[in-house]
Order: sequence, then C-alpha cells, then structure tokens
Amino acid sequence: MKLWALNDYGRANLRQRSAPIPEPGPGEVLVKVAAVSLNHRDIMMVADGMGAPLSFPFSPGSDMAGSVAALGEGAARFSVGDRVISTFMPGWIDGRTAGNARTPSYRALGGELPGVLAEYLVVPDGWLVRAPQSLDDGEASTLPVAGLTAWFALIERGTLRAGETVLVQGTGGVALFGIQIARMHGATVIVTSGSSEKLDRAKALGATYVINRHTEDWVEAVYHHTRDHGADHILELIGGANLGRSIAAVAVAGRISVIGLLEGLELSGPAVPLLLKSPVIQGVAVGHRRALEDFVLAIDRNGLKPVIQRRYGFDALPEALAAFDCGPFGKIVVEIA
Amino acid sequence: MKLWALNDYGRANLRQRSAPIPEPGPGEVLVKVAAVSLNHRDIMMVADGMGAPLSFPFSPGSDMAGSVAALGEGAARFSVGDRVISTFMPGWIDGRTAGNARTPSYRALGGELPGVLAEYLVVPDGWLVRAPQSLDDGEASTLPVAGLTAWFALIERGTLRAGETVLVQGTGGVALFGIQIARMHGATVIVTSGSSEKLDRAKALGATYVINRHTEDWVEAVYHHTRDHGADHILELIGGANLGRSIAAVAVAGRISVIGLLEGLELSGPAVPLLLKSPVIQGVAVGHRRALEDFVLAIDRNGLKPVIQRRYGFDALPEALAAFDCGPFGKIVVEIA
Amino acid sequence: MKLWALNDYGRANLRQRSAPIPEPGPGEVLVKVAAVSLNHRDIMMVADGMGAPLSFPFSPGSDMAGSVAALGEGAARFSVGDRVISTFMPGWIDGRTAGNARTPSYRALGGELPGVLAEYLVVPDGWLVRAPQSLDDGEASTLPVAGLTAWFALIERGTLRAGETVLVQGTGGVALFGIQIARMHGATVIVTSGSSEKLDRAKALGATYVINRHTEDWVEAVYHHTRDHGADHILELIGGANLGRSIAAVAVAGRISVIGLLEGLELSGPAVPLLLKSPVIQGVAVGHRRALEDFVLAIDRNGLKPVIQRRYGFDALPEALAAFDCGPFGKIVVEIA
Amino acid sequence: MKLWALNDYGRANLRQRSAPIPEPGPGEVLVKVAAVSLNHRDIMMVADGMGAPLSFPFSPGSDMAGSVAALGEGAARFSVGDRVISTFMPGWIDGRTAGNARTPSYRALGGELPGVLAEYLVVPDGWLVRAPQSLDDGEASTLPVAGLTAWFALIERGTLRAGETVLVQGTGGVALFGIQIARMHGATVIVTSGSSEKLDRAKALGATYVINRHTEDWVEAVYHHTRDHGADHILELIGGANLGRSIAAVAVAGRISVIGLLEGLELSGPAVPLLLKSPVIQGVAVGHRRALEDFVLAIDRNGLKPVIQRRYGFDALPEALAAFDCGPFGKIVVEIA
Repeated sequence: MKLWALNDYGRANLRQRSAPIPEPGPGEVLVKVAAVSLNHRDIMMVADGMGAPLSFPFSPGSDMAGSVAALGEGAARFSVGDRVISTFMPGWIDGRTAGNARTPSYRALGGELPGVLAEYLVVPDGWLVRAPQSLDDGEASTLPVAGLTAWFALIERGTLRAGETVLVQGTGGVALFGIQIARMHGATVIVTSGSSEKLDRAKALGATYVINRHTEDWVEAVYHHTRDHGADHILELIGGANLGRSIAAVAVAGRISVIGLLEGLELSGPAVPLLLKSPVIQGVAVGHRRALEDFVLAIDRNGLKPVIQRRYGFDALPEALAAFDCGPFGKIVVEIA
Repeated sequence: MKLWALNDYGRANLRQRSAPIPEPGPGEVLVKVAAVSLNHRDIMMVADGMGAPLSFPFSPGSDMAGSVAALGEGAARFSVGDRVISTFMPGWIDGRTAGNARTPSYRALGGELPGVLAEYLVVPDGWLVRAPQSLDDGEASTLPVAGLTAWFALIERGTLRAGETVLVQGTGGVALFGIQIARMHGATVIVTSGSSEKLDRAKALGATYVINRHTEDWVEAVYHHTRDHGADHILELIGGANLGRSIAAVAVAGRISVIGLLEGLELSGPAVPLLLKSPVIQGVAVGHRRALEDFVLAIDRNGLKPVIQRRYGFDALPEALAAFDCGPFGKIVVEIA
Repeated sequence: MKLWALNDYGRANLRQRSAPIPEPGPGEVLVKVAAVSLNHRDIMMVADGMGAPLSFPFSPGSDMAGSVAALGEGAARFSVGDRVISTFMPGWIDGRTAGNARTPSYRALGGELPGVLAEYLVVPDGWLVRAPQSLDDGEASTLPVAGLTAWFALIERGTLRAGETVLVQGTGGVALFGIQIARMHGATVIVTSGSSEKLDRAKALGATYVINRHTEDWVEAVYHHTRDHGADHILELIGGANLGRSIAAVAVAGRISVIGLLEGLELSGPAVPLLLKSPVIQGVAVGHRRALEDFVLAIDRNGLKPVIQRRYGFDALPEALAAFDCGPFGKIVVEIA
Repeated sequence: MKLWALNDYGRANLRQRSAPIPEPGPGEVLVKVAAVSLNHRDIMMVADGMGAPLSFPFSPGSDMAGSVAALGEGAARFSVGDRVISTFMPGWIDGRTAGNARTPSYRALGGELPGVLAEYLVVPDGWLVRAPQSLDDGEASTLPVAGLTAWFALIERGTLRAGETVLVQGTGGVALFGIQIARMHGATVIVTSGSSEKLDRAKALGATYVINRHTEDWVEAVYHHTRDHGADHILELIGGANLGRSIAAVAVAGRISVIGLLEGLELSGPAVPLLLKSPVIQGVAVGHRRALEDFVLAIDRNGLKPVIQRRYGFDALPEALAAFDCGPFGKIVVEIA
C-alpha cells in the first residue's frame, strides 16, 4: 500500500512510501481509507511536530473516512464493508478526558498516535464511528476534527437553543461548521472576517449578519445587531488579545469557546466585565466519541453538507497542502482512488 | 437616626450625620440595622467611587444584618421582629442576572444603590433574606457579600463534591469562607499565602494543605499534594497574570472562579493547557437571593461560624477601616448598639 | 368595558358583563386585550374550578396578547403602545418556582389570579413579556401556556439538540408546538394519534414519522423508526398508565416530560426499565418568564407560526368553547375588535 | 482454588467447588479476592436468576475487594500488589450507559457476567478501581454496588449541597451509605424505618431526624421536620405505590432517585403534584467507573467507614446468606483468608 510520511521536519521531507498492508490483531479492524481532510494542525505537525519529538518516519493526518476491510478476532462493533470515520482522541469515549493537571492528554491521531495519510490503517474497533449515510467519503472525512470541534463547543458544551446568537470568528473549517450547526438549531449567526468575498459566501451558507472587521468595530457591530444583548455563544477562533474583545461582546451569562490560536498562545482580557457578565470561558480541543456519534445522527437528519473547497488525489498531497496555505473557504480533501 | 456618609471622595470626607428615620412605603420594610461588615469594595467606593460618579451625600456599606422594625402596606415576606440580612444585588432573585453585553448590571447596595451604614434602612421586602438562627448579628452581617461569593462560586456554580480539591488563594474574607464551605462538603482544601502565621490559622480553620507562596512554587506544590491531578476548583482571588498559574494548576475539566483583582484588571494566561484541560473559567460577582437562602440553611445545619477579626462600635468606623487596611484574618464588623 | 365572567360553576353561567376600565396603580400597566386563546384548563375551570373554590364573579382565561394602554407610576418595563403577552404564573421569573412540598404554588391567571377574558386588564409590569414582532395578536396569544409548555419541556429543561428523536403524543395545543419547536432544533419528530387525518396534518407541519395508535403498537413503531434506540424525549400528554408505555419507548438516558392527564390523575409504570435506562421523568406546568422571553426570540428568528384552528369574535365565546370540545387541530382564539 | 457455584436455581444448589487458578490474557489481570459483600441481588440471582437464564455452573457475587496477583500482556493500569475493587457494570466508564430502548444493558458481575465468589478472578484491567487506602478489604468490598448506588444518586446525579434535606427510606445497604454520604456533604438527613432500634442506630450514624413509619404518617413528619419545605432528595428504596408518597414528600424542584423495589415492580403516583412541584424522578442502577473513583477519593478524604453487620469466612457463605435474610443493619461480608 501507499502512504505519506515525513523522514524529518519540514514539508520538503514529506514523501510517498510503500508498506505492506497491516493485519488487524484482536479487537482491531483493517480500514481502507477513502478520504483524508486537512487541518491546520497537520501543517504545524509537518513543520515542527508542534513541540513534541516525532519518531520518523511519521505519517501526518487526523481526519479520515473509509470502510472496514477486515476484522480482527473479537472486533464486534462493525461488519466488513461498513463505512466509518476516525475519532481524533481515540480513548475519549464520553464524559471527562484523560490526563492530569501537569500532563494533559493529547493522544491524538497524526500526533502522539500515527496519522491517517495511508491507503490502509489498522485500529481498535472502538476508535471508529459509523459514517453518515447522507455524505460521501470526502465530506465524511471533514467531521472528526473541524466538524466535531464546532459541534462539541456549540452543542455538547454549549447546549445551544433557537433564538440565541452565535458569533463565529473567521471562515476557517471550524467556523463554517459553526455556521451550519448553529443554523440547524435555529440560532442567529454573526460572522466576522476581513474578506468581503468570504463574508458573502458565509451569508449564502446561512449567516444572519456579517461584519467586516477591517471596516467596522466588530464589538460595536455585535451590540448593534443584538440590540446590546451581545452574543450568547462566541467561537473564539483568533486567540491572544482578541479574547478581550470577545469578553466585551459576549452576553450576560453567555459562553466563549476558546478554540483557535492564530494571534498567539497567550490569552488576555479584562476582568471587570468577566465578573459582571459572568460568561463561561472554556477551551475546546475537539471532543469525544459519543458526541461524534450524536453529530452524525444530526447530519443525516438535517442534510448538513460540509463545505469542501477542493478535492485532490492521493498523489497530489503537496498541492493540497499548498491550497490549505491560501486560506480556503471550505475544507481541503485528499481522496484515495 | 445616625448614619455615615461621604460628602466627597476620600476617607477624610466620611462623616457621621443624623437624619430622620425613614418610613416604609408599599411593599417596603423598615430595618433596624444591627451590624455591618466591611468589604474591599467599601474601601474602593470611599476612595474614588470605583469609577462611577457618586451623588453626595453617599453612604457606603453593602453587608448588613438587622431586624424588621416596621412593615409598609402589603409587605408580606416578613413580620416585625424578624432577623434579616441584606442582598447585595437586590433585583437578582434566581437564574440569570440583569443587564446586557454593553452595560452589565452592577446595581448593588453601597454603590448604585444606597449603602447600609445607618441605624435604619427602608428597602423593598424582596431585598432581604432571613438571618441564620445560629449566628449573632455581627456574624450574620458577613454573609451577603464575602460569604455568598464563596458559596456561589463553589456550590451554586461549582457543584462541589466530597473528595474534590479546592485551591483557595490568600486568606481574605472570601477565602476564609471558601475554606469553611469546602470543608462542609468534604473537599480537600489547599490554601496559598505569603504569611506563615496566616497559613497556620488557615490550617486551624480546616485547610488540608497550606503553601507559602514566598518559599514554594505553588503550582508545583499543588501538583505534589494532588499527585498531579491538580485542583478541581480554584478560587482565583489574585487576578492579573496569576490566572495563568491557575490554569497550570487546575485539574482536567476543573473550574476557575475569577473573583479577586489584586494584581490588576487585565487577566492573562496560556491557551494550550486551556484547550487540553478544558476547565471552565467563570467570573463571580457575589450571587442571587435564592443562593443566599440556600447558604443560610447550610449554615444553620452545619454550625459554620464566620471568622471575625474584630468588632467595632458604630462611632469607630474610621478605626474599623484602618483595621481593614492591615489585611486582617477574618471580617471587620461594625456593630450598632 | 366588556368582560366574560361566571357567577356560578358551569358553562351556562358564563355571561358577558360590563365594568369600568380599571386604572393602573404604582408599578402596574393597563393592557388593552386583543386576543385570548383557549386551553383545556379553561374548560375545567369553568366546569368546576378544578377543585379550588372560586369567588364569583370569576373571569376565566390564561393566555393573552394585547398592547400597553397606560402606565402606572414607576412602571418602567414598557412604553404605551408596546405589544405584550401575558405570563401564566406571574411571579415566576427564572430558576425555581414558589410554594413548598405541602402546598405547591399554582398562582396562575384564570385560576388563583383573575382571568384575561376582558377588554382591559391591569397587571404589574413584571407580569408581561414583549410579543413577537412576527406574529399577529391571535397567534401571539397562544404562546404563554401551550407554546411555553412545549418550549419549557423540550428546550429549557430538555436542552434538545439536532439529531435527537422527540415523541409527541396526540395533536393538541402543546403537541403541535412540540412538533414545531423540535423541528426548529433539527430533531426527528414522531407523532402518535388515533386520527389518520390529524396525522396527515402533523406530517405536513413537520413530523418525520407518524403512528396511528389504533392500528399500530406505538412502542414497537418507535423502536422501528429509531432502530431500537428509542425516543430521546417524550412529551407525555396522555398520563395514567400510558406513562408505562412511555418508559418502554424512551431511550437510554432519555427524558419524559409529564404534561397531560387525559387518561387519569394517577400515573403508573414499570420500575425495571426505569432503573436500567435511567431516563429523567419530570412534570412540566408551563414555565417561567425568562424562558418565555427566550421563546419569543426564537419565534422571531425562525418564523414559527402557531397553528390556529379558528378565530372567534369576543361575543362568540360560547361557540369558541364548543369548538374546543371537538378536539381541534390548532388553537381556538377569541379576538377583541 | 476454591469458588462457590450453583448447579441449579436455589440456595440448596450452591456448592463450593475447586478449579484451576485462571491466567490473565492480554490486557487482563489476575485478582486474588480478599472479600465479597452480599447484596439483595445475590439472593435473587441464586433463587431464580432474576428472570434471565443462567448457564450452570454459575458463581454469584457482584462486589469484591482484593489485590492484583499477576498482569497479562499490556495490562498497564495497575501493578502487582495493588489493592483493587470491582466495578458492577464493567463497560460503563463515564457518561451514558450502553444498550437501547428495547434492550437496556444489564451486563453486570454475578449476572450476565461471572460472579466474584472465588479465590481468584481474571478480568480486563479496565474493570477495576484502586481501593481506598483508609479501608480494609471487607469494608472496601461494600463500595462497588451499595456504596456507589447511594453516591451516584446523591452526588453524581443529584449534586447534593449542604443544607439540603435527604430522605432515606429504610436502613438497608444503600440507605446507610446514603446517610453517611449526605452527612459528608453537610445535608440534613431524615430516615424512615419500621424498627425503633434501627432508627436509633441510624441516628447514631448521623441521621438528623428519624421517623417510625409504623407509628407516624411519614409524609406529615417530613413536612414537620422541614417546615413544609419537603425533602430535596429522596432515596426511593421501597418502590410500588410508595413512590406516590415520595412525590407528596418531595420539595419543589427536588429529586427522587428510584432504587429499590421491595413493594413491587410497578410504580405509581399522583400526577398533579408531579406537575406543580416538578421534581426529577430518575432510576438509578449503580453507576459508572469514574464516579466510583470519585467516591474512593471522598472516602479517603473524609474517613467514611462502611457499616458492616458481620464478617464470615469463605466456607460460611450459607450462614452469611441466612444473616442477610434477617435484614441486617450493615453489610454482610464474606472474607477469604
């Protein structure tokens, strides 16, 4: 089989290799991978391993859709032929994640665990979730990271309800799912971006109001669109000092889900409105398997279609990564024939 | 009757005055004030009004115990003679507080509303809560602000349970209630302070472990005492960049209640552990009337005795304020004969 | 002004009377009533007072839309001309309701409190909520009881999310709102009824699956439609021994909202599935003001239109009550010219 | 090794046998059993399998403490010598339990899974939890079923807080843990029983009030002791029509945990107070592993000592079962030398 792997840090060291198709052991399944979607994390892992030492060769990729090709002894959750998607942090089934205060767990595919940019994978059957019937493989491959992150923040943690206002920052992968999931629940959606063209597309996708942050004070614009109520739920996808602006924009008893770190790894913001409005601020790092199963049901029920910017063949991974660099509107997917 | 009032900002402008005893209108009650406890907020209001323009004469004081002296027409929640305490934000009965994103509500006694440093007060009967039977007036006067803040953070928002670990920063008024309330629920309590003598007293009050932040790295000490689990709930009473250290010390899926702002009004902290551990960070500005009623029941059931550093006579308010400046271990109370 | 009132129990004793237009006192507003919608409760109150002794003359009616005609002193929540709707249990703002274990509170309009079948009402301004902009008065009058009951069960208590399955029993007022609210949140909706014609209309309103309980075993049909998962949330609108069937049909960790009592005041059901599936069973008696405000926002955002079977003039109340007896599909509304 | 097993239904068919010590496979551990505590469920399983067909020989027993004697390949959660206790439903780690509406899961030790009345067991390492350091093996063996059931109801589901009132029905195994856990959280505890002698012992264990249900109307007594507030949380350990009395006794917005079924498998109760007081009624069938780990921490922190009526040797199982029949005050434990 073919697979992509690094033999050292840096995109130039990403090479296609071949390897024997692995065999599933007890409780494991062999998955024929059909599609992999790219995430910002993949870019960072390829560049420098995100600070963690990688053992080479290392295959990147965290998001996968495929089908069950063979079952190991006792693997009972699926049948051969079932369409499946991966889970990002495979040990996290429900409730609380693993790890402790000193060493939080980050045991994820394409990082501490091997990545998915290969024709075949062997994984324990508990690491997989049934794919939605209403999506093709390319679409389904976008759910385990970007899709679930938005769902986990808004629905599993945020218990969003119709009539609430969600503020989505930017138009990246999590942001677009945020728009769709919020609309699926009857919420008002406000999107900020620096690109008028992307804001037009966000509006076409369902955004109620859009704010060009280059031409408007976005906090004032949120006050305006909500008649000073503020945003009940903010997907904080920028980070850094932007958190302070989100605290200004959030409603009384609202919620800020900290997800993205584009403007730096150190968050900051004012304490007084944090005390008086008492929003919940909570970091979200993807989510657990049960929530992904819930999300799959919601997709099949409501016909949500992930936004894909473009699909590439397996051999075109370098072009796909280059497309990701350009800030696409929608996911970049690599498909395996 | 006698009352204390400012005729301009600054402690030197705080004077005792006399005024007629007010009469309760419809739905109101006349309260004979028996004790007032001081809070850091009173110090700040006297100094500069905390940024809000005061109309002079202005009476400070937010925390009061007394008894019902007369009833206005239709005031049915209490009888004459009932012992009562005040509520800090009188309109907040249960659920969500008032205000909006642009203008959060801060309609509190001794601020936007008149203060309690007077022999008599007239207030709507809904602004009062029955005092605990097991406390005297001086003790009861410490509950509406410092006591309720600790209760609201740990119990109403935090749903603390036995076996969890609470980290209390410092030994101020909220901190000492935090120790007592956490112990009342079977939690482990860790206290940090720069004073060994105060840590000894915290231990005598029930703290399980104490950390001198001048001689130990307190985050490492929390890891040590919890075998790396971290603190399930942190009362963040320092603020500023200390929040970053609290994020390091908090357990996976834990909670940080932001309450105090001693080290500055701008909070900051690292994003990566916030994402991976996913604690809830939530500001707490005292709490609602229903929670204060719950807290009163808990006090009578469990015999909690607020820690009082010293009691002063009504005429000795200046000495009481001076005592507050010295960082007492326990509340400073002004009693009215 | 005109009003309808009983001078004794029984529909024959319901007479139109005239009275002076009342004047609002301090904190009160005068409301010009535009529409009243009927509920099963009104039928029962007229028949026998539901067991509580009424003082005659007694005006029935609990659900009202109108506009503010005059303001009493200090009534600041509304301006003259604002369109408003009533709240069913006026003292219940947020959080927990009043009353105690021995004597639960049932202080509601058209029962313990005067009803709304009059041209004008005087009420405290806190008893009202702004009407949705997207509904006319007749539509808006259906929200405070039937609409809010469905919202409170599914959303405020039930935190419904897309992809979950809601089972709605019958096609009464609460049931139809349940279908619409569940669909607004992306849920699958199953409706049971004994009338094929009503099931067709339920399907047209958005129901995903319908079950004729005269021709099918509805529990088996729920298993079938959910592939044995069961219903995540059941609106128990029948009561009596039907609760036992709901316990059979509910999903693991699901929820049963007990609302209707058509088959008797004594509920019963099997304990073993209650233990093993551990659903929450919770009675719902309408809901609080904050939830009604949330619901109004959701209606304006999503264009929900209450189903009205027919509108009657104020003088035609007897015909309206007769129409209610026939089991309409949609609300019966009385409008005041 | 020795073990106890049935070769047919009925206590007369319970025989001690011998078998080879099993060997742990991959991911499994060998546990040397030190103590087994008896539950009502064991009595029923021995009598008739509780309706499920048993395959003989069948070993009963669901509650175990012991130590790790050997590790299978890859079993990394424990070291040899670690003291451990069992989990009742081993697959349930956190969050929601398995199974569906039609076929709820009841995959528990000493039922669908083999029992623990043997000198050695082999189980996956994920089925075990570290034993409390502060308890001996006999005490620790009482936690996985009776102890966790009370903890799960009151704390994991009930988020009990100081000052609330817990009503405990009877003095069985779950009841006594309920008293201790409620007191550990500062709650008021009311106990009902038909035995004055047992009520005296309940009071000595920490109950605040006791009610002899043969000589008092217990619902009225609850009203009396709570000044009509009612019980915030009721451990419903009787079942049948007693649920109706619990609905009468429960506080507004309280909680009834349905656990015991002594008075029959069909629950019943009045709908009107269920609607007006809106308590949560939820069945509890033991609980998940994460909650058992939390409970172990709480025990070590607070020194809770399970009440043991008497300890028997392994060969004295028949005498131990006979003691259980007599309605002991405290657990019956079988210890293995």
